[in-house]
Amino acid sequence: MVLIDGMLAVDAIVLLNGKIVLIRRRNPPFENCYALPGGFVEKGETVEQALVREVIEETGLDIDIVKLVGVYSEPDRDPRGRVISLCYLTEARGEPSPNTDAKGIALFGLSELPELAFDHEPMIRDAEEDIDEILSKMR
Amino acid sequence: MVLIDGMLAVDAIVLLNGKIVLIRRRNPPFENCYALPGGFVEKGETVEQALVREVIEETGLDIDIVKLVGVYSEPDRDPRGRVISLCYLTEARGEPSPNTDAKGIALFGLSELPELAFDHEPMIRDAEEDIDEILSKMR
Repeated sequence: MVLIDGMLAVDAIVLLNGKIVLIRRRNPPFENCYALPGGFVEKGETVEQALVREVIEETGLDIDIVKLVGVYSEPDRDPRGRVISLCYLTEARGEPSPNTDAKGIALFGLSELPELAFDHEPMIRDAEEDIDEILSKMR
Repeated sequence: MVLIDGMLAVDAIVLLNGKIVLIRRRNPPFENCYALPGGFVEKGETVEQALVREVIEETGLDIDIVKLVGVYSEPDRDPRGRVISLCYLTEARGEPSPNTDAKGIALFGLSELPELAFDHEPMIRDAEEDIDEILSKMR
């Protein structure tokens, strides 16, 4: 979804086999950096449809949405310009398979996360309590 | 905030003196209908800043945000075109005073709500448990 002064995006915290699924970014900004799977909301789709589509495109994983984590709208949060992002906590099944948008996919435990692009680390922190609860049931 | 195929809006469930604050719409769509206070996110402001600004403009009330209720993004939810709305639950203090955007302001109990514009009734229903909890403390 294109805004005249920015874009509306979705980002997913994807839980799989007790870990968090991260993609390694192929393109700038934050090239080579790990990030949550996500992307822009397109015309005619709901934000939930955009989220499911982006996660499949970037990781091959089919997700169930657990909850909305928050709205991230600081005007300077993306170096490309105004991008407001909606972050959701999700659960996935199956085997991840990276597509051409991502350089790779990796699974990390909550306590072993690498440096993340954008404000994706605060997003995970905001969902930490819920992530802990879900992961403790997966173990 | 203007989107090329739509707009990004915020709507507030404002709790005041044990009631929900509704405005009566001056302009179409849903002219004369009751609605939650809210409006469009503008350039350079966060969604939280937009929410506080819109509620002051429409009701004269200063709010504290309690929580994000949800994201409402069905492509046909607004007859004017694509509008994605973020709904927040808030608490207010003081005396409401309608401005020129609204025909009037009224306070309703949760069980005595009038017909509402857009999908504002489902927004309130989605927040019902939290509204009940806050109102029970206000009594």
